[in-house]
Amino acid sequence: MNIYCLLFEEYETLDLMGPVEFLHRVPDARLHYASQNGGMVRSKQGFAVETDLLERLLPGSILLLPGGQGTRKLVHQPAFLSDLAQWAVQAETCLSVCTGSALLAAAGCLDGVAATSNKRAFEWVKSIRSEVKWQPVARWMRAGKFYTSSGVSAGMDMVLGFIADRYGTAQAEEIAVHTEYIWQNDPAIDAFAALYGYGG
Amino acid sequence: MNIYCLLFEEYETLDLMGPVEFLHRVPDARLHYASQNGGMVRSKQGFAVETDLLERLLPGSILLLPGGQGTRKLVHQPAFLSDLAQWAVQAETCLSVCTGSALLAAAGCLDGVAATSNKRAFEWVKSIRSEVKWQPVARWMRAGKFYTSSGVSAGMDMVLGFIADRYGTAQAEEIAVHTEYIWQNDPAIDAFAALYGYGG
Repeated sequence: MNIYCLLFEEYETLDLMGPVEFLHRVPDARLHYASQNGGMVRSKQGFAVETDLLERLLPGSILLLPGGQGTRKLVHQPAFLSDLAQWAVQAETCLSVCTGSALLAAAGCLDGVAATSNKRAFEWVKSIRSEVKWQPVARWMRAGKFYTSSGVSAGMDMVLGFIADRYGTAQAEEIAVHTEYIWQNDPAIDAFAALYGYGG
Repeated sequence: MNIYCLLFEEYETLDLMGPVEFLHRVPDARLHYASQNGGMVRSKQGFAVETDLLERLLPGSILLLPGGQGTRKLVHQPAFLSDLAQWAVQAETCLSVCTGSALLAAAGCLDGVAATSNKRAFEWVKSIRSEVKWQPVARWMRAGKFYTSSGVSAGMDMVLGFIADRYGTAQAEEIAVHTEYIWQNDPAIDAFAALYGYGG
């Protein structure tokens, strides 16, 4: 299973690295750290990671897309969004964390698709594209090939959910136990939505 | 607040990056990504981060030490352990995650200190140095300037605990809410110890 981690300037660290921790533990996983132009890419938290230039995903691949401050610029960059739309088509499954779903939405990938995002940034995310079926109360959403999660830490719960769907719950639970992670395994429970006036 | 993140080959990604996500959100935090020799350092999960050569910590600094597979070699490298012992002396506070505490123990920093580590690797960690007061049931331990956590994900709970101790609980809770993180804020509750036969 080839997994392409798509880095961009000012992505949010845990959006990417939480899922990386879990996905790397799937027996057949091969992770690729990639970006639109290759080279060193800096997270919002200031460290620089070496990336390969992303051209084309291998067949049957997973695309992992973090969110973060960097998305605010990227939603206005047609060249990036056009590349992203192609990578999303090539991917067998797309996993986005936090405002990563704003990028997929801006690229036109989520029209008619049920999706979620960070609740703190939800009004901004919704404003990007109204054709998406935005879900204000969800830890994560699965809709066809797209998994989208709520803010930052929610990506870890979502990725374990993806692993459970694809490899079985026992595999996801084994990874959670090995990393001493307390997995919130119900995608419908969202402890944070109400803080911003969503739901109930 | 200067925070030195000490990277080494084959450190465990989330051990470092979970705490980085939270520590970076403290208003006066300045994170340094450093290693014994500087240059690119690769995590167990395969990505390479640029690091500065770590010589001396600035006064009043925090040292953050991940664990992971790389610790198995480092506990046998006197030159590294000697440097680590000095950095630990220079640090105002030391935060270690997972088997990071095995490194501090091997460097002689934890003699007589109550400390914990990953429960899955606990027998190995204990074998490194019996002079440490190893605690088999703890999400994390605070003893003087040393905070040590249980496995991988426990580092995130510990770092929020450190932030609560230093900046107040409201600051830690604000960071947890912003990152939609479900914080286990009681260091004494360890859901994983019993799986390995520790505790009641």
